[in-house]
Amino acid sequence: MAEAPLFERLCLVGVGLIGSSIARAARKAKLAGSIVATDASAEVRRRIVELGLVESAPADPAEAVRGADCVILCTPLGTYKDIVRRIAPNLRPGAILSDVGSVKSCVLADVGALVPKGVHLVPGHPVAGTEHSGPDAGFAEIFEGRWAILTPPAGADAGAVERLTRFWAGLGSTVEIMDAARHDLTLAITSHLPHLIAYTIVGTAAELENVTAAEVIRYSAGGFRDFTRIAGSNPVMWRDIFLDNKEAVLEMLGRFSEDLTALQRAIRYGDGKTLEDWFTRTRAIRRGVIEAKQA
Amino acid sequence: MAEAPLFERLCLVGVGLIGSSIARAARKAKLAGSIVATDASAEVRRRIVELGLVESAPADPAEAVRGADCVILCTPLGTYKDIVRRIAPNLRPGAILSDVGSVKSCVLADVGALVPKGVHLVPGHPVAGTEHSGPDAGFAEIFEGRWAILTPPAGADAGAVERLTRFWAGLGSTVEIMDAARHDLTLAITSHLPHLIAYTIVGTAAELENVTAAEVIRYSAGGFRDFTRIAGSNPVMWRDIFLDNKEAVLEMLGRFSEDLTALQRAIRYGDGKTLEDWFTRTRAIRRGVIEAKQA
Repeated sequence: MAEAPLFERLCLVGVGLIGSSIARAARKAKLAGSIVATDASAEVRRRIVELGLVESAPADPAEAVRGADCVILCTPLGTYKDIVRRIAPNLRPGAILSDVGSVKSCVLADVGALVPKGVHLVPGHPVAGTEHSGPDAGFAEIFEGRWAILTPPAGADAGAVERLTRFWAGLGSTVEIMDAARHDLTLAITSHLPHLIAYTIVGTAAELENVTAAEVIRYSAGGFRDFTRIAGSNPVMWRDIFLDNKEAVLEMLGRFSEDLTALQRAIRYGDGKTLEDWFTRTRAIRRGVIEAKQA
Repeated sequence: MAEAPLFERLCLVGVGLIGSSIARAARKAKLAGSIVATDASAEVRRRIVELGLVESAPADPAEAVRGADCVILCTPLGTYKDIVRRIAPNLRPGAILSDVGSVKSCVLADVGALVPKGVHLVPGHPVAGTEHSGPDAGFAEIFEGRWAILTPPAGADAGAVERLTRFWAGLGSTVEIMDAARHDLTLAITSHLPHLIAYTIVGTAAELENVTAAEVIRYSAGGFRDFTRIAGSNPVMWRDIFLDNKEAVLEMLGRFSEDLTALQRAIRYGDGKTLEDWFTRTRAIRRGVIEAKQA
């Protein structure tokens, strides 16, 4: 007899790049008996049924979560409060409620009090993605070899954490349990600040009056194109990330600005030694990324 | 009878990523009767002969350029003056002297007066590359579909410009003739500032006392890894680029810093509309890069 799947019924709320990738990967790894999903967009709901990603796609989140033993929010962080308010009455006792948001302290703060007794809130964050959005952009392999971070609150149900760990491992990720505040600080430098800077410079380039957008695009292979890729990410999702991880982002941004000013000064005064020393040190980090197979 | 190659004897001064890629691509496209190269490193000279990239690799640049009808400098910008002083007496009348440096106004200013009468100085810049360095990193296809910019000075020999244009087209590039100052301003935003920012943030990340380098590397897939790639580029080459394109880089950096401060302020005051509007505008530039096949 085949082993029972990890979850009887998996419910995904929001089916963009990450939600649809979870559906694909969970289906491939047979981690759920059935998958149901909901999305604010009727077009997306139609499409995910057409793609065969889910058994059903009701419009009402409260309807979608009924009977699910695992519910994962895959929508922008700013939508969590409303969604949890709507689904809370229908959450099955013993169910796991998780998410995939890029900031974690705010999840507990925003929805912790709204989660019914007996439902296990275990926030999560797969450190994976592309700049593409929508259910057609997802793919089952996106989580393979990537880290999935879980930030269970103090006193979280050990069994629930363990099941969610097995779920993400089943999707191909290496799972790390971490304190939410530490997560937010770490991701502020490895993800949030890089996105902010990329968004900034692409915007700066688009506004120049002395170089045209066509020229910027034409000669983008010199480095700029990598920034445009990052700056092509979902605007609403990223708006919410910056608003929800304000303190850590501002802290990292302050350090970055100091360093940039130091290099700016070195350029202005022709201090080649400072520049070369700095550029030499950064090579070691690149080697580390390659050795850790995250390149 | 086979058509005569474009150049009888091509001489490359400096054989790193770009120099060795030119040798490979020129050989493949049969653009030169023979290829000779020199490099300050004995190990590199030994290696390029071993790789079969050149007919000979003398240690002395003055020796290497003898009889060449096209000489291309592929060393960091800061070396040009010394090299041209050394090779000038041996440059063949009618020869083309070019380079591949990422800044162009400084080339004329630095070496224009050192070039003997009858030798045609036509500075160039292939907008192509990777973060790797050295003769083993090069490959023949690196210039395919990329732009090669030539910045001939006023009054440059039309025949020399035309031959160099055919050379770069033969390597697979689309050639653009441009004013040196315009080149430097355009590349300041599409290449130099992106590199400066990437170098900065990777250095910032390496110095944090509250997040370890191991954590930064581990979770780099969230965006940071793309910056480490750029910040893995050759330190001496990039030091010289910033020193030689100071005015344009400082100008673009000033605009970037203003924009970053505006977004910082939006984050601090929770102004989601400013963030979302900015992040939405940048998507159009990304689409342009994809449509121009520079992604």
